[in-house]
Amino acid sequence: MIIGKVVGSIVATRKNENLIGSKFMIVEPLKSMDCNLNRIVAVDNVGAGIGEIVLVAQGSAARIGCGIDSSPVDAAIVGIVDDGVGL
Amino acid sequence: MIIGKVVGSIVATRKNENLIGSKFMIVEPLKSMDCNLNRIVAVDNVGAGIGEIVLVAQGSAARIGCGIDSSPVDAAIVGIVDDGVGL
Amino acid sequence: MIIGKVVGSIVATRKNENLIGSKFMIVEPLKSMDCNLNRIVAVDNVGAGIGEIVLVAQGSAARIGCGIDSSPVDAAIVGIVDDGVGL
Amino acid sequence: MIIGKVVGSIVATRKNENLIGSKFMIVEPLKSMDCNLNRIVAVDNVGAGIGEIVLVAQGSAARIGCGIDSSPVDAAIVGIVDDGVGL
Amino acid sequence: MIIGKVVGSIVATRKNENLIGSKFMIVEPLKSMDCNLNRIVAVDNVGAGIGEIVLVAQGSAARIGCGIDSSPVDAAIVGIVDDGVGL
Repeated sequence: MIIGKVVGSIVATRKNENLIGSKFMIVEPLKSMDCNLNRIVAVDNVGAGIGEIVLVAQGSAARIGCGIDSSPVDAAIVGIVDDGVGL
Repeated sequence: MIIGKVVGSIVATRKNENLIGSKFMIVEPLKSMDCNLNRIVAVDNVGAGIGEIVLVAQGSAARIGCGIDSSPVDAAIVGIVDDGVGL
Repeated sequence: MIIGKVVGSIVATRKNENLIGSKFMIVEPLKSMDCNLNRIVAVDNVGAGIGEIVLVAQGSAARIGCGIDSSPVDAAIVGIVDDGVGL
Repeated sequence: MIIGKVVGSIVATRKNENLIGSKFMIVEPLKSMDCNLNRIVAVDNVGAGIGEIVLVAQGSAARIGCGIDSSPVDAAIVGIVDDGVGL
Repeated sequence: MIIGKVVGSIVATRKNENLIGSKFMIVEPLKSMDCNLNRIVAVDNVGAGIGEIVLVAQGSAARIGCGIDSSPVDAAIVGIVDDGVGL
């Protein structure tokens, strides 16, 4: 997983039907996690808000671990980071 | 997922039979999503056109989330982005 | 998926038994798809020859989409590109 | 897999319920494994402590190989490295 | 898949029980396959020795293609390269 900051969100009216109801957030990884700071779009699984530091799971773990096995989702916010060492 | 712009498409007459009927679009990620702007080929699942800003799912999510479980597809356009913050 | 050019092939006599009979091609991605031009080894699923421009699927899509679910294959050539815009 | 050093850990009170009880460690890959030293968050499967050199599995292997198939986990510490050549 | 050279191995006494008996080799990709030469740890499936040029499968293909579906393994050496063009 990686840790990043929620920096935005998107609206997509026309989309795959398995995505209806999902909230899409933009997450910028911490510099220590991705030196290029490449942002990703992650489905919100924990009620994260803009500015929060979050844990993001990628790949099949995002779908299967969030109970949305048949959604075209490859990244999900799965935790809000309260505290940490080595970030 | 990542967000990018549809910049082209390809034609492939000779192909795996599970790809027959698929529309292959070329997507260039936004600079904030991939600082190298490496383009990817994604199957279109929502009727996207050239110039549109789209949401792309990668990996097994592209196949399974679009109901084409047995196609050799590792990226799919799954939404048209109407609006966004932090792109 | 990515698009690349077939630039070579390899021979491996000693290999995993599920790979017997597979043809392994070396594919160099187009510069627009991977600015580093990192080559990959892909199993040929469509009869591609050296010099041809091909479509390559990666990850589980390569195995499952080509009907070789139990082979240790993570990339496959799944189409020959005839024409394209935005390559 | 990659080898890295455990450099920290995180606390996340609000998280996906399948993550309850997991210990999240921050791992910095060895320079020879990732020249960018991009850190990752991995679930601890072997009782690793800060400062230890560990083996990390990524992708579906982290979930399935650690018996946590339905957790949103894409990286796990699966061994403590005692010794090595070519690190 | 990628091609690389076996440059070392590791010993891990404390590890996930599904890894007991596995041989972990360090593989350095060829420069043409990864311009950064980032090394990876791969389980040996074909009896590879240090100095040999090998074919490495990554992701779920490593587990499933080598018959170790429930091991936390994301890379495996699946062939010894005898000869090649375009490496």
